[in-house]
This record gives sequence, structure tokens and C-alpha cells, in this order.
Amino acid sequence: MSAFSRFTPLVESLPATVPFVGPEAIERNRGLRVAARIGANENGFGPAPSVIEAMKAHAGEIWQYNDPENHALKQALGRHLGLPAGHIGIGEGIDGLLGLIVRLVISGGETVVTSLGAYPTFNYHVAGFGGRLVTVPYANDREDLDGLLETARREKARLVYLANPDNPMGSWWEADEIVAFARAIPEDTLLILDEAYSETGPASALPPADALVDRTNVIRTRTFSKAYGLAGARVGYTISTPGNASAFDKIRHHFGMNRLATEAALAALKDQDYLRDVVRRIAASRDRIASIAAENGLLPLPSATNFVAIDAGGDGVRARAIVDGLMELGVFIRMPGVAPLNRCIRVSTGPDAAIDLFAEALPKVLAGLRR
Amino acid sequence: MSAFSRFTPLVESLPATVPFVGPEAIERNRGLRVAARIGANENGFGPAPSVIEAMKAHAGEIWQYNDPENHALKQALGRHLGLPAGHIGIGEGIDGLLGLIVRLVISGGETVVTSLGAYPTFNYHVAGFGGRLVTVPYANDREDLDGLLETARREKARLVYLANPDNPMGSWWEADEIVAFARAIPEDTLLILDEAYSETGPASALPPADALVDRTNVIRTRTFSKAYGLAGARVGYTISTPGNASAFDKIRHHFGMNRLATEAALAALKDQDYLRDVVRRIAASRDRIASIAAENGLLPLPSATNFVAIDAGGDGVRARAIVDGLMELGVFIRMPGVAPLNRCIRVSTGPDAAIDLFAEALPKVLAGLRR
Repeated sequence: MSAFSRFTPLVESLPATVPFVGPEAIERNRGLRVAARIGANENGFGPAPSVIEAMKAHAGEIWQYNDPENHALKQALGRHLGLPAGHIGIGEGIDGLLGLIVRLVISGGETVVTSLGAYPTFNYHVAGFGGRLVTVPYANDREDLDGLLETARREKARLVYLANPDNPMGSWWEADEIVAFARAIPEDTLLILDEAYSETGPASALPPADALVDRTNVIRTRTFSKAYGLAGARVGYTISTPGNASAFDKIRHHFGMNRLATEAALAALKDQDYLRDVVRRIAASRDRIASIAAENGLLPLPSATNFVAIDAGGDGVRARAIVDGLMELGVFIRMPGVAPLNRCIRVSTGPDAAIDLFAEALPKVLAGLRR
Repeated sequence: MSAFSRFTPLVESLPATVPFVGPEAIERNRGLRVAARIGANENGFGPAPSVIEAMKAHAGEIWQYNDPENHALKQALGRHLGLPAGHIGIGEGIDGLLGLIVRLVISGGETVVTSLGAYPTFNYHVAGFGGRLVTVPYANDREDLDGLLETARREKARLVYLANPDNPMGSWWEADEIVAFARAIPEDTLLILDEAYSETGPASALPPADALVDRTNVIRTRTFSKAYGLAGARVGYTISTPGNASAFDKIRHHFGMNRLATEAALAALKDQDYLRDVVRRIAASRDRIASIAAENGLLPLPSATNFVAIDAGGDGVRARAIVDGLMELGVFIRMPGVAPLNRCIRVSTGPDAAIDLFAEALPKVLAGLRR
């Protein structure tokens, strides 16, 4: 297709690939209907009713730009975390924040270390700013802390990405192991500690909010997209030194936040009762998904997230066949993209109605594969 | 403040300045209350009631990520404009799209041409990607088409920015002049034609949607933030060749759009009756602002936008004193940042209640300056 002749060499080298194909595109392209939306680690239990009410109450203010300093949300997060607000950065979801962090550090050719099969959107940003990606295989379905550290040192990496709890496997490390890892990272290497699933894991897996807040080479990322049920709102935040938090001000879209999304996040923070309740429902749904897997002869992996990775007992071809077969029956799930993780399918927690459909469809799909 | 030691050299060179200080920050920093919010060219008349209703109706879906392909909105915009949807790109407001366009073209050191005193957020993005900004003075309070063209040629610019209608002066060129200018831009120079205010100007100033759609070196930007009253939603779009539209797919945040914002934009497009009505109210408000200015001995400039630039009869110091004096009385307006444009103040249209406050406050402020 005809395009401008002088895009940057980097842009010219990039593919137009999408990190994830959305369920809407699957519906359009394959003529299917998604009846159970349990593939994107959204929170099908939804946000608190108080959050929906806050969005409705503030809908009439949508003609106003959001406060570019995100003052109220920074203050509220600071209070929630027991940290001065200067440690908080706000952005359009962790995806947006990852783009900003990569841009702060990578200008072309620098080395970035991540796990093989970890978050594709991070890799997308690294490619988009010309970074050189070095991957470390998972060990026993967990991100390999020793391997990541050793590789970061050997490669003189400028950036390291670690998610705890992890996506796509749902595995986790304990807080003291994470803190030791973060403290061992060289000072001229920036660690992104992605805690998108911080609310759904065991408390022992989450370092205290102030555990690493003095370290200039650590930025923790969090989101309202998962436990808080606001994926469509695009609200993420960072915990870091104040200096790193204000570095975003050099390059972020100051008026980029949606006004109602901010109101939703503020309301969500206030309703911690609902959060506790929804985390319990997520945990129960995890157990149910694991039972369904086991009943069908598959092996569910332990999970600290709002999804369960299930070892489907074969290779990526088999797992892909299950994902595709489930989609034919209206059940949208996903799977890891890289071996050996891609022996698994990944099922997001959600209301029983959605999990019912999964429970009905899975044996049919597996029976079809046996024929 | 302590920050990571290895940000890119470009990032280290950037100031942490904000393109615009928001009214909320003015309230916090100066202990004032904004009673009339007519400074940010928001649409105080608000979006259509049908749009508010659509956001409320879809609020419960906020747990779902938005369709990353923005299929429905692209289709709707294509129908609205009479263009195949492949010509449309979607982004988080024009601000977000400008960032993407600059990133597609500027990797460091390339020359970018804009008017002296034009949109600061564009300049912010150019600085953020290491472009070299060359400015052309306004001529008679309009962007100087001949000067921009000549400078783009002479400097072998990679990127040229032109807003029509213009912000901050409200001036405009006729469609045939804009099309001739765009067609004269060298093929290896990309023209950003920013049409944020396309709905509020005379029809004769707006080139047909398909006028430049075959040109690989033109991208037009539009928004739902102004006439449609959705500044806080962050929905902008581009009109270009399909090749340029899909270039965004290499670097954009595929899941960056807020789901309710998309629903709001879809509803807004459907309610063209409301748009026509609100454009009439904007025009009437422009006339009223102009009358108030004239009654106070100031010179309102003709405007094709949702604001009026008013020559305050002095220099930037006088205009700044008026802006600050009005804010003391609860009236938030802005002013251009660069001479000679900064002899003006800039007042956004809005409901009579807000303009009443401006009408009351202005003579007081001017009297204070005379003392």
C-alpha cells in the first residue's frame, strides 16, 4: 500500500504485527460469536457497582480534559500505598507505561532482557524503539531469576523485564526473592517489575510498597485492568523514586488520560470491600477452572493471577487445536506463544456462566481431538 | 531528584516542561476556583445527551478491553466521510496521533517546520523525538502558507505542521488554498494538516474528505474533543492513504483506546442534529465574546474555531496581566505564547453563564490595569 516515502529506517524495519488479536477480530474474521470471554485476563466479574455509578455520575463532565497532573489519583494511590504521592506515575494502562519506560531508556541497539515467552506487548515496545531483545527461558514454568540476573550482567543490559505474578504462566516468586533479585540488578540496568496481578496473588508474593522505592533502577508497574475490572478504561501506575516518576513528564501525553477512567480508578480505590470480595471470587474461579481441567485429564498449574495456565499434555499444535476448537464453540481463551510454555492453554477466571461454557465445551473439543 | 542513571541522551536533554498547565493546577497552585472554564477550547455546551446516555448504557462493559482494531469506529467514520474505512486511523486524541506521526518520521536531527506560536504540543513531540524545529512567523495573524512552503523546501523539512482553522488565532484559509498548499509540498515532506476545528469553521474552509486522500505525504487529523464535546474522552482520527493509516499499526498502543470513549464517539457521529445545533451555539457564543471585547475597547479577531482571539491592544505583558486578572475573578482563559500573537487573549466559547462571568470580570480587570 502506498505510504510516505521517508519513514524512519527503524519504522521501515518494523512489521505491522499486532501483539494480540482481539476477540472482536476473531468474531469478524471467523464468523463466530464469543459467548464466554475468558481469554484476555479481563475481570468478567466487572468493577464495583460503586465504580459504575461513579462513571455515570461524572459522564456529563466528559467535555473537560482530565487534570494533566493526575493530582487526585496520585494522592489517592499514595494514601492507599502509604507512600508520598511523588513516588507515583500515572499512565494509560501498563501497556502505555511500558512504552514510555522503553522510550526513556532505549534509543537504538541497547540490550533488553526478558523471559522467553513473557509479555509480547513489552517486546513490541522494545522492537518499536530499536532495542535488542535477549531472552531467558522459563525454568519450571517460572521466570528464571538467576538466569535473568546472570544474563543482564553478561549482556550489560540496559533494561530487564520481570512480571510477578507472571503472565502467561500464572507462577510467582515470594517477595523476599523478588526484592533480593531487584537489589542485585546492576545500578545501570533498569528493572521493570510488572505487578499487574499483584492483587490476586498470595500476600507473601508482594513486596511492601516501599520495599524498593529508594532504588533508582527499579520501576514497578500496576494496573486497574485486572482485579479492579477496568481493562477498558486504561489506567495504570508506577511506583518508583520521585525522580523516575517525573521523568515521564518529559515524554508522556500530559492530557492523555480519560476523565471518566480517572473517576473510575478513584472510586475503585475507595471500594476495597468490593476488591476483597472479587479477589475471593477470582480465587474460587481459579479453583473451578483447575477442577475442570483435572476432570478432563489435563494438568492445571498453580496460579497467583486471574487466569489458569493448563498443561494440555502435548505440544503447541495440540494446545492451538484446543484453543481453536473452544472458539468454534464460542469460548474465547488464549495460549502462550512460545515453547515449552505453549503446551498450555490459558483460561481467565470469570462468572460461572462463562466457566460453565468452558466446562461444557472442553470435553467436546478433547473428544474431537482424540478422533 | 534521584533517577535512573542511563536514560537516553535525548531524554536527558529534555526539560520536564508541560505544554499546557491545566486549570486544576492553577486552582491548586494559586488557591483560586475556576468558575468559568473557557480557556482550553473545550466545548462547555457538552456532548449530545444521546452521547452521555450511550456512555452510561455501556459503562458496565468497562471490564472489557476495547477492540484493538477500532473496527466499528473506523467503519462509522468512513461512512460519515464517504471514504473507505482503510483511510481512517484512530488514536487517543490528536495529541496522541501527533506523537505517533512524529515518531514515524523523526529519529533525531530531521527538520520540522511549523508556525511560530502554533500548537505547543506538536513542538513538544518534535523535541521529544529529537527533531529540529524551524518556525515561520504568522502573517497578518494567519499561518503563512507561502512562508511555510518556501521554508519546507529550503530546509528540506521532513515534516510540516499546519492547522486549519488555526489555533491559537482562530484564523483560516479557504479550502482551495489549503489543497494547493498541500499539493505543492515536496513528496518527501510529510504534511500534517490539523483540522481539530473543522466542524466550527465556514464550509468553504474545509477541503472535501477525499481531496488529498491519494497523497502519501499528507495526513489530516481530526478530533471529537472540540465540536463533539468529548475532550476528556481522548478520541482522534486521521485521514490518509491506507498505507499511512496502517503505518500506525507498527507503533501504536493497540489496546490504548478507552472502551466508553469509543462508544461515545460512535454515538456522537450518529447525532448530527445535535452537532449542527451546537455549532450554531458556538457561533453565537463567538459573536457574543466579540461584542464583549469590542464593548471593552478591545479588538476581537475573526474566528473559525470554538474560541476568539482578542487583540488586547498592547504586548504580551498586558495580555498576561488580563489573563491573570481574570483568573483572580474565577475566569480561566489562555493566551498565545509568542510575540506578536501574545498581544492577544484567547477566550473559548461556552454557555452564557460562563460568558456572563467573563463579561462581568473583563471591565474590572481592564479598569484595574488603567489604575
